[in-house]
Amino acid sequence: MSARKVNPISYKSVSISDPFWTKYRNLVRDEVIPYQWDALNDRIEGAAPSRAIRNFRIAAGEEEGEFYGYIFQDSDVAKWLEAVAYSLASSPDPELERLADETIELLNRAQQPDGYLNTYFTIKHPDRRWENERDNHETYCAGHLIEAAVAYYETTGKTQLLNLVCKLADHIDSVYGEEEGKLRGYPGHQEIELALMRLYAVTGEERYAHLSRFFINERGREPHFFKQEADRRAERHGRESLLAEGYYNLYKHNYEYNQSHLPVREQEHAVGHAVRAVYMYAGMADVAAKTGDVSLLEACRRLWDNVTQRQMYITGGIGSNHDGEAFSFDYDLPNDTAYTETCAAIGLVFWAHRMLHLDPDGKYADVIERALYNGTISGMSLDGKSFFYVNPLEVWPEACKRPDKMHVEKVRQKWFGCACCPPNLARMIASLGQYIYSQDENTVHVHQYIGSETTVGLSGQQVRLSLESNYPWDGQIKLTVAPEHKGEFSVAVRIPGWCEGASVFVNGQKVSADARPRKGYLKLTREWDAGDVITLDFPMPVERIYANPKVRTNAGKVAIQRGPIVYCLEQADNGEILPDISLPENAELSARFEPGRLGGVTVVTAEAVRGDSRGWDTTLYGKKKRSKHAAPIQAIPYFAWANRGEGEMLVWIREE
Amino acid sequence: MSARKVNPISYKSVSISDPFWTKYRNLVRDEVIPYQWDALNDRIEGAAPSRAIRNFRIAAGEEEGEFYGYIFQDSDVAKWLEAVAYSLASSPDPELERLADETIELLNRAQQPDGYLNTYFTIKHPDRRWENERDNHETYCAGHLIEAAVAYYETTGKTQLLNLVCKLADHIDSVYGEEEGKLRGYPGHQEIELALMRLYAVTGEERYAHLSRFFINERGREPHFFKQEADRRAERHGRESLLAEGYYNLYKHNYEYNQSHLPVREQEHAVGHAVRAVYMYAGMADVAAKTGDVSLLEACRRLWDNVTQRQMYITGGIGSNHDGEAFSFDYDLPNDTAYTETCAAIGLVFWAHRMLHLDPDGKYADVIERALYNGTISGMSLDGKSFFYVNPLEVWPEACKRPDKMHVEKVRQKWFGCACCPPNLARMIASLGQYIYSQDENTVHVHQYIGSETTVGLSGQQVRLSLESNYPWDGQIKLTVAPEHKGEFSVAVRIPGWCEGASVFVNGQKVSADARPRKGYLKLTREWDAGDVITLDFPMPVERIYANPKVRTNAGKVAIQRGPIVYCLEQADNGEILPDISLPENAELSARFEPGRLGGVTVVTAEAVRGDSRGWDTTLYGKKKRSKHAAPIQAIPYFAWANRGEGEMLVWIREE
Repeated sequence: MSARKVNPISYKSVSISDPFWTKYRNLVRDEVIPYQWDALNDRIEGAAPSRAIRNFRIAAGEEEGEFYGYIFQDSDVAKWLEAVAYSLASSPDPELERLADETIELLNRAQQPDGYLNTYFTIKHPDRRWENERDNHETYCAGHLIEAAVAYYETTGKTQLLNLVCKLADHIDSVYGEEEGKLRGYPGHQEIELALMRLYAVTGEERYAHLSRFFINERGREPHFFKQEADRRAERHGRESLLAEGYYNLYKHNYEYNQSHLPVREQEHAVGHAVRAVYMYAGMADVAAKTGDVSLLEACRRLWDNVTQRQMYITGGIGSNHDGEAFSFDYDLPNDTAYTETCAAIGLVFWAHRMLHLDPDGKYADVIERALYNGTISGMSLDGKSFFYVNPLEVWPEACKRPDKMHVEKVRQKWFGCACCPPNLARMIASLGQYIYSQDENTVHVHQYIGSETTVGLSGQQVRLSLESNYPWDGQIKLTVAPEHKGEFSVAVRIPGWCEGASVFVNGQKVSADARPRKGYLKLTREWDAGDVITLDFPMPVERIYANPKVRTNAGKVAIQRGPIVYCLEQADNGEILPDISLPENAELSARFEPGRLGGVTVVTAEAVRGDSRGWDTTLYGKKKRSKHAAPIQAIPYFAWANRGEGEMLVWIREE
Repeated sequence: MSARKVNPISYKSVSISDPFWTKYRNLVRDEVIPYQWDALNDRIEGAAPSRAIRNFRIAAGEEEGEFYGYIFQDSDVAKWLEAVAYSLASSPDPELERLADETIELLNRAQQPDGYLNTYFTIKHPDRRWENERDNHETYCAGHLIEAAVAYYETTGKTQLLNLVCKLADHIDSVYGEEEGKLRGYPGHQEIELALMRLYAVTGEERYAHLSRFFINERGREPHFFKQEADRRAERHGRESLLAEGYYNLYKHNYEYNQSHLPVREQEHAVGHAVRAVYMYAGMADVAAKTGDVSLLEACRRLWDNVTQRQMYITGGIGSNHDGEAFSFDYDLPNDTAYTETCAAIGLVFWAHRMLHLDPDGKYADVIERALYNGTISGMSLDGKSFFYVNPLEVWPEACKRPDKMHVEKVRQKWFGCACCPPNLARMIASLGQYIYSQDENTVHVHQYIGSETTVGLSGQQVRLSLESNYPWDGQIKLTVAPEHKGEFSVAVRIPGWCEGASVFVNGQKVSADARPRKGYLKLTREWDAGDVITLDFPMPVERIYANPKVRTNAGKVAIQRGPIVYCLEQADNGEILPDISLPENAELSARFEPGRLGGVTVVTAEAVRGDSRGWDTTLYGKKKRSKHAAPIQAIPYFAWANRGEGEMLVWIREE
């Protein structure tokens, strides 16, 4: 392992009090989790039924009925439990914990004697377990349940769910593996790989790490497991059964879709379903961290470079293709047909978090920051009540009726039949604490400037850290360092990639310019004492950002960014036909915090230019260039778009 | 009828000798028609089989076998016959005529005793005639056969095919109509409406005009015919039969798709499948011309304004939506996903031709010119051997693998399973003579500046007109007027919409500036004598064209046009990443005819600007604006693109 690892600091050890994030965390606690519980129990009027809880009751033999929903319906319950676990860590709530415990009881009763737990197969096809992992999401649902169990154990100390998933993992370990008689297969939707590594981390059971590594290593080998599976199904059920599969699986012959086209170590370009991809990359990083497998780490790094240097939107969104919710080819980042699923940006955060701990390089924390403040939370309305799957960078509402843009919603939706994004956002936001700090023996790293407190063991003593800031609206950060007693250790503070001219002060004394940041972190080593204060000053001018020239769609265009926040224009502030607006190269961009606007955001204003549209009513093409006039524009943070009804939106603005 | 009609002059009466078009006409004669004959007879190695001729042999009982191909496979034979007819008019060819006669004999033998002729139903489902006009193309195939018969009769004087189609039309007239016991229906794919009007024109049989008018009037009425048809099928074959239809008809419940969503007189926006639409509008214009129906004419005009002022590409292409090969909503004209089927641009020419004769306004001839020189012939390679269905205005070859751009071909294809565009181009080019002149008693209109000769009866005598030009490369036109004897009449010459500062001379004498063109035509009334010469001088500077600001995709962009020719940039001349090129507002655009280039075209050159791409290899987003450097560019006529292998192409260029 060439890199020097650092250890994550759990969300459990971090208490957040932040003017930006506390709002979101409260929304998750007060809106999203209760709403989701009602949804899982079919108590939302007018919403598509979920029946997810009912499926477990049927599987437990406590109710009559048919399975209902997607084949991965169980995972909605798991994600809810996981979000509940994180939320309980920061906001104890006996009533909510009781609901969770009851749900876990129910899961327990639905689990089969051999450890198997999946309501679809238990109810509908008990004889068809593990015969189509390509499509059936059995390990996917198990993976989410494992993550929930780990989180619930971590925050409550209760072991019932943990025991349940150990039994389930043991069962899966009896089905898959190198040994004679086991399936040499791997998930169709990756997720269990990273989940097993989490389970290993809390249980210390090597078999779980081994199984995760097995799934990673086996993937994409020839003869191809999904082909073999299909052949076996044809033998068992007749060849027509494969035809029937085609009706609901457009991707059955597309192994890039689920990243099984090549062994993972040979993968150089991110391809296929973006969520599957980043969940897998996160699992690969976990396995590399545990095993020190250099070739696996190298694959992670190559894929990281491909994603972040070729295939990522400025918002941290990934997966530009609607078809297959997938990565495309390098530099193919259309703004108006972008898929950029909320879950994919969240998965990118998960992966980046792991990469950062393999190698504390600010480039990983920069991507986490980019996604956190832009392309993830854009998936949720400011009132926490409606959600986007798809996060485009340019919207012309009328065009959303075009078949090739029909996936683009003009306003956020209450809930989805396939409800993956809202609970995924909930668990990310509720577990936000884990992204802020990490440590090794003598150094604490500060990655994100989220107002918080934690206590870290450094150089043999407990050190209390308190971070105060008004980030992302303001680049002044105050970090109070309080060791039990005077002692030498290091505090490595991240200088964000977007920041130029950062100043760092210790107890008011400016840190010498000789102390240059290394890989994005400025390491302050000294003898610290209680009450020492690090002050960071990150200048936050409004910046113009340009895209790589190969991103053809952004030619001649500019995006506005201030600090980590990417801006957009909305029709509500700027009228219609936003692409007609152009921003002169020398136009001054001013920032102003508006407490009453969109829950309190910094708005960017500028004097831009528009063309005169008079006289064009009956003219489609004309020789006369339109005269221009000054047009004041207001840009709002991208994450806050679509909170004022339907209208045009635009991130990349023409520059002149 | 408010407008003053003029009469078309047939392709038969016009002999073309034109440096631009003669090449194309020779290609049609020497390449397209023979190639298509081989295709119809399955003699092309490696091409998808057609079996169209074989289907007729099977239907005639002369060969055993199954029907093969699309349900409208017969129309390929009809379109070939029609193109042959026009070609024979200008290039007599006894061998070709013999092949056509033999084919007509075969059709004759395949026709059923009651006049019915459609090989699909005769071979496969003789009991299912006329039960699903929404999908089955029975009148569509008949319409193309009628057009072929009219043309073949006009050029050869032979009546066998004409008699055949009269019998077929009589049969259709016995199936559809107002009378008790007949179906009150109309075509699923419009075409027979205009064909019946042509049949009426040569036979004088009022029933054919009446049937056409019936189809037009009946369309879109409630209760909806396609619904009634479907109900009858369900009754006859069981409801499952309707489910099965869904598999091959995505548009079964979309009445906009085939313009039956409203009665035609209530239609204001062009919607649905673009070819169906313009064929119908052409039929509506024909019926309006015959009946003087003002409300029908008004509908035609409203739809004309909608198409040409809101939904037409600068190339004359129409139908921006791949899904349904369809019109979209106003101003939705994406360049890179444009469908713009070759046949739709051709259909626009057919419709415009009819509108022009209802009301000789230059705006109609301008659209014909725009489509002829740009978006129709772009469908054919310069060697006449390969074809585009789809004519986008911007191509990034790599992006054609994106599912939402998969309809965009990077290079022209040899032949298609659904072979509508190549024979449609063939018949348009072979019948080009009809677009040049028209007349009323005392006036000849000159619409298109295509080198040609014709003789027109004007004011009681025969007047010979000879037109010489090097159009579209050169705006000097010489029109020699030769009456049998001195006499007064008018010659109305079109001043193209793109032209400013036209000069007109009669016998070298400049026509006074007081003589202003009216509705696009300058009418020269005098006593003409043999040898009088009209000289037109249309200045052809290279022009910059701007799009209506509501066409969001073209904001800040400019197209290059010279005379009627729209230009594009190709990678072959300008390197890759064409969107990176920007054209300074003050850059001079120069034109130069290059005889050796792309078969002889005028190339436009300019000093444009590109950004410096160095240092961006690993950077996706950066703050540093790229420095610019001068970049000479060469633009070629749009119609000639994709004749030098695969590469990027761009019509709308950024302007700065």
